[in-house]
Order: sequence, then C-alpha cells, then structure tokens
Amino acid sequence: MGPLEGLKVLDLSRVIAGPYCSMLLGDLGADIVKVERPDGEGTRNIEPTVGKDSLFFMAFNRNKRSMTLNFRNKSGQETLRKLVGKADVLLENFRPGTMEKMGCSWEVLHEINPRLIMARISGYGHEGPKSDRIAIDPVIQAASGLMSMTGPKEGPPTMMGVTVVDHATAMYATVAITAALQARHSSGKGQMVRVNLMDSALSLLQASIPEYQLFGKKPAKIGAADRFGAPVNSYETKDGKKIQIAAGGAMHFPRFLDAIKMPHLISDPRFMEGSNRLKNAEALDSEIAPWMRARSAEDILEIMVAASVPCDIVAEITDVVSDPHLKERGQIIEVDHPDVGQFKMQGFFAKFSETEMALRYGVPSVGQHTNEVLSEWLGHDAESISRLREEGAL
Amino acid sequence: MGPLEGLKVLDLSRVIAGPYCSMLLGDLGADIVKVERPDGEGTRNIEPTVGKDSLFFMAFNRNKRSMTLNFRNKSGQETLRKLVGKADVLLENFRPGTMEKMGCSWEVLHEINPRLIMARISGYGHEGPKSDRIAIDPVIQAASGLMSMTGPKEGPPTMMGVTVVDHATAMYATVAITAALQARHSSGKGQMVRVNLMDSALSLLQASIPEYQLFGKKPAKIGAADRFGAPVNSYETKDGKKIQIAAGGAMHFPRFLDAIKMPHLISDPRFMEGSNRLKNAEALDSEIAPWMRARSAEDILEIMVAASVPCDIVAEITDVVSDPHLKERGQIIEVDHPDVGQFKMQGFFAKFSETEMALRYGVPSVGQHTNEVLSEWLGHDAESISRLREEGAL
Repeated sequence: MGPLEGLKVLDLSRVIAGPYCSMLLGDLGADIVKVERPDGEGTRNIEPTVGKDSLFFMAFNRNKRSMTLNFRNKSGQETLRKLVGKADVLLENFRPGTMEKMGCSWEVLHEINPRLIMARISGYGHEGPKSDRIAIDPVIQAASGLMSMTGPKEGPPTMMGVTVVDHATAMYATVAITAALQARHSSGKGQMVRVNLMDSALSLLQASIPEYQLFGKKPAKIGAADRFGAPVNSYETKDGKKIQIAAGGAMHFPRFLDAIKMPHLISDPRFMEGSNRLKNAEALDSEIAPWMRARSAEDILEIMVAASVPCDIVAEITDVVSDPHLKERGQIIEVDHPDVGQFKMQGFFAKFSETEMALRYGVPSVGQHTNEVLSEWLGHDAESISRLREEGAL
Repeated sequence: MGPLEGLKVLDLSRVIAGPYCSMLLGDLGADIVKVERPDGEGTRNIEPTVGKDSLFFMAFNRNKRSMTLNFRNKSGQETLRKLVGKADVLLENFRPGTMEKMGCSWEVLHEINPRLIMARISGYGHEGPKSDRIAIDPVIQAASGLMSMTGPKEGPPTMMGVTVVDHATAMYATVAITAALQARHSSGKGQMVRVNLMDSALSLLQASIPEYQLFGKKPAKIGAADRFGAPVNSYETKDGKKIQIAAGGAMHFPRFLDAIKMPHLISDPRFMEGSNRLKNAEALDSEIAPWMRARSAEDILEIMVAASVPCDIVAEITDVVSDPHLKERGQIIEVDHPDVGQFKMQGFFAKFSETEMALRYGVPSVGQHTNEVLSEWLGHDAESISRLREEGAL
C-alpha cells in the first residue's frame, strides 16, 4: 500500500512537467486517471517510437490509467465536471485561459467539489507581462540564467543535458499538492495551487542573485568543476576513462592530499584556504592531473574511497544500466507496455518503512481504461458509455 | 497561514540537500528548528562570506530558527531525544550509521514518538555495495550519467551549472515527508522515509535507460539544442545577444516557418518529420541562423511571441534580477540576515489560493533561538538551560 493510497487524481496534463508530477503521485499509490484527447496525447508520436508509442511518453507515464475525453465537446466537458466531483486532485498544464474556455474555471470546479485541489502548471506563471507566452524547458533554461551558468568555462551557454526545469516543476507541483492535502485535513477544503517553469528554474539559481546584489559578481560557467570548491573536476586516467573528484571541502582536502601523497601542498599558500584553492584551481589541477593519468580509474576510486574522499567514475549510460549497486537496490525496474511488453526504466525516488512505492500499472494505451473509469467513478453502464461515444464525448 | 502551519520539524541536516528540503517546508509554513553543532554548520564558512555567514548558507536557510546542540555530548543527545518527542518530522543527512551512534536509531526514535516521520538523506542509499561512500552533487552528476549527457556536442562531459542533484534530492525528500504525513492521517503512525542523491539523479535520466535497452543508443551531449526536437538552439542576434528558440514540435514548426517567412522549408524532405529535422538539425540551423543574425533579439522575440513560438533571450543574472515580469510577480524577495541586514533572493515556488507561502524568519545566526526553542518545545526555564550549557550540551 502506498502512502497516497485512496487519493483520486484526474490528470489532464501533457508533455513532461504535468505527467511527471502525476507519475510521482502514482508511484506513491494515488489512483491516476490520465485524461487524453481521443487521438491520444501528442507526445505519444515523438520519435523514436516503439510500437505505437514514443520512448518519450513511456518515460513519464507509468502507474496511470488512461481514459479519453473530447475537451471541445459539450458532453465531454460535462463528463469532466462530473469526474471532478469524485476527484481529490485535478492537474492541468494547458495554456492560461484554456480551462476557463472549457467551462472548468477554479470557481466552477470549487463549487462542484469544495474538497478539490486544482493544480495548475504554466510556463511563466498565470499573471505578469509574460503570462500569455508559451514556454518549454529549453527556453526557460535560457530565460532564467541557468544556461549562462552551464558549459565549458570559456564556451557558449549550454543546455543542461536533461529537462531539469520540467522535472523541478513536476516535483514542486507534487509538493504543492501534498501540502494542500495536509491543509485540507484541518480546513476541510481544497484549494488552487499553481507552479510554473520560470519560478522553478529561478529556485535553482543557488546564491547567484544575492552574489550579484552583494558582490556585483555574475556566475561563471564551470565546465566540470564546482562553483564553491576546488579541487573538483574530471581527470583523465591511465585507462582512458574520466574520474570525478570533489575534494574542495575543508575536511576532504587534507585527506585527499594524504591519499595522493602530496601532503606538502597543504602548506602551499596558493591552496591554503578554500578561497585560494578556488582562485588557483587550474594550478591545483595541474599538480593533480599527472597523478591521475598514471593510474587506472578503478585504482584511483579504491584509494579515494579508502580515504573518504567523494569520487566516482564519469559514467555512460552503459555503466549505469549495469551498475551492481543499482541492481542490488532494485533501482532499475521492468515496466509493462501494451505494445512493447516489458521495458526497463528507473525505479522509485524514496523508500518508506511502513508503506511502499510500487508498480501497480504499466504505461497505458490511449483510452485503455475509459469504460472502467466511467463505471467505477461515475457508475456509468455500457449503455450510457455508448451514448457518450455517439455524442463524440470520448 | 501556510499549508504546513503547525508542523514541527527538527532539522539536523547540513550543506544543500537537507537544508533546502527544510527551507521548502519552512516556506510552506512549518516550524523549522535547525539544530547546529555549537560552532555552527560548516557551510557558514564557505567563501565568499558576508559578515559572519557565507552566501552559500544564506541561499538555503531562510524561514528557520537555529538552536545549537552538541551531538557528541550525552546530555546533548538526551535533549535531542526529548525534542524528538515533540516533533512531527526529523530530517538528517549524516553518513549512514551516525544517528545510530548518537543513540538515535529509527527504532529508538519511533519508540519515543510513534507519530514521528524520520526523513533520511544519503549519497548512494542506505544499502548496497556503495552505501558507505561519501557522495556530493558533482560526483553523483558524474556517476549517474547526467554529466555524459551535458556539454557541447563534441566536447567533454560537463557539469550542470548548479547542484541539480542536491536540489532534486531535497524536493524528493519534501514529497516523501508530505506523503508520509498523508499516510499518518489514516494510520496514526509516522514512518521512516529515505531518499538519496544517486536515485534522485537516476530519476532525471528521462528516456535514456529504455532508449539504450531498446535501441542500443547512448544519449548524446546536446550543446544548446534539445534531445527530442529541432530546431531548438541558441542563435546569435544582430545586437550581439543570443536567443533561444524551441520550435521542434509538430505544432510549433509550421508557425515558426511562417514567422521567419520560409514556408517552403515545410516541404523540404530533410525537415518534413520530427525525426528528419532532428537528423538534419545542423542543416536546418544554417537555414535559420542568417535570419536571426540580421535582427535584434527584441525584434525576434516580438515576432516569435506573436507567432506563439517558444522563445526567449539567453539571460545573464543581470537580466534576471531586473526582469519586469519577475518583479511584477514578486519573485525576488528581501530576506533578513542578522549581519547583512536585508538581501535579495528567489521567492516561493508555488502560489496557493487559500493558504500562503511567506517569509516568517530570515536566515538565523548560530543558536539564535536555542533558549526560545528549549523553552517552547520542552518547557525549560533559564536555570535548566544554563545547566545544559554547563554540561556542554548546547
């Protein structure tokens, strides 16, 4: 049984930020009903596909049931409002104004179901001069300053290699929903919660805003190094790999010097305080690099682990899928898909001592559970479902 | 009133993943008591500092009170267990085994307070062959494969410019805690919840694991482009800026071509399907780049906004702090600090219709609230607090 067992979530969202939020809620045991337009969510078609579905879709849609609903059809919209009457949470990431056009504003839904939590995800927020604009992750990585902090030291602004802003937004939406659930236990009432990509990106800027305000300093791009400590970098090893060492901390640095048998560097004035090490990071790297190049990655790792210095090999996906540590911990799981059979993906983000995160559903095909959900949630029989189909509602 | 009003959190954590979690809970209205060793959390000293504190510390510690406790002192440990008796949540990110050495294992704490939620953050997880290893964000970006996906297309693996793994871990810890709160409403009992940096990083890999399994394909580094669509890139503008366009989607691409008046490209076989555009992204970029170079960033932005194509200027921190949109939405706030006075930082991650995220405390100095908390939570008077000080417990 998951910690969110019994929670009913109506998920109208598409792409990543919304679907990843509902996948997290589903992984936690909530009953997720993904509501798709009759031809299915558009991201099901993004190449590469396997069978009828995209890898993209498969990555963000386990642990959900799928039903279809024609959002532009009057009786589709009416069915949606009936489902809202039974839901704890409604999640959407349409462009601001779309829910209102569908006759599903917060005021209407709150009236139908005062306990409903309505979670809304937008690009730039629902108010302010940019609120009407479409936004997707790469544009917000650019607009938030995150891109200006990522990439080689002297190179151009670079995208983080994954949609970090979408993921962060999904997690914040999940936190907002669960916090609103907690508030509902005392007030008895639901509420509207809103997150957006821009605010989520902003939250990742660490100390950049106060650093600029107080020191007039713009955050540099850091390559494979760290913003607050040195030595932190990737070093080439004898066997052609790269190893990442993070020994900038006041506790780690002396241990590291002992491990590489260069204790004299501790009294080198260039490296005597964290701030000096950071300033002279290149000089420090050139002292360290030959030691690394003379040893295999595995040998270095063993030495660093013994010395309690944070260190690991720079992994490719091949290393990750075969990592014995992840295997032993069950962090790569098999998920069902109607066309593909089973496929491998990441496991769950937490372990609970008294409840469990588990796979209850695989990735659904479009509308796989339409009849089941209409019957369970609304008590519809075969005849009334047929009527809805005839009316073009499903 | 915040959605988590009334929730008592005892926060023993240090650095980022733990403190950012408790900052989120504090922003949501929980009462956060940050428990520091008598000389204060080590990260208070990371350069650059302002007054007695680091920027680093200031970025992750608003909305908390601070008390000191000597974790190695018997009566310090006993005081900790008494505080646990009054807490809803205990958060820690010590190395696995440390809480046990302090006489504060899950079994002991659960016995003291059956409603307690104990949230534990580790590097590689509490079990498995790597569980004993120290890990910090840059090492996990390397070990998880995230680094291998980030950076210039032909360049070396690159760090994401901020500690994304720490942030994700903090958010997952927050979700786990609020989910356990929800479970507590039905069971009446707390539980132990555990997250770690490695699993959190793994969760960000998008479709890389199934893509490798099903297609044998390793994820490429993407520079300023996108993994699933083209055209997505940064383009140089006439006025020496860079603009990020994301027009890879089936809906966005035709609108984009109309906007740049190159509708003929829609029937160019190189660009006719998403997969072709991705394959021929460089050719597509070379068609587009001259159009961008002939116009100012503001002019391009205006055209793209009118055409509903996702687009924004690649911002530096200077642009972010002066962004009228963020100003109007109150997303840059002033936070109090005992030495610095007020400083600017990011606002809150969500807006709630019936409760609010707000600043109730600034960033505390070391032990600023020790007496207050001991009196409020445990009913200690001046005399018994003095005794604890004499015993070296505080």
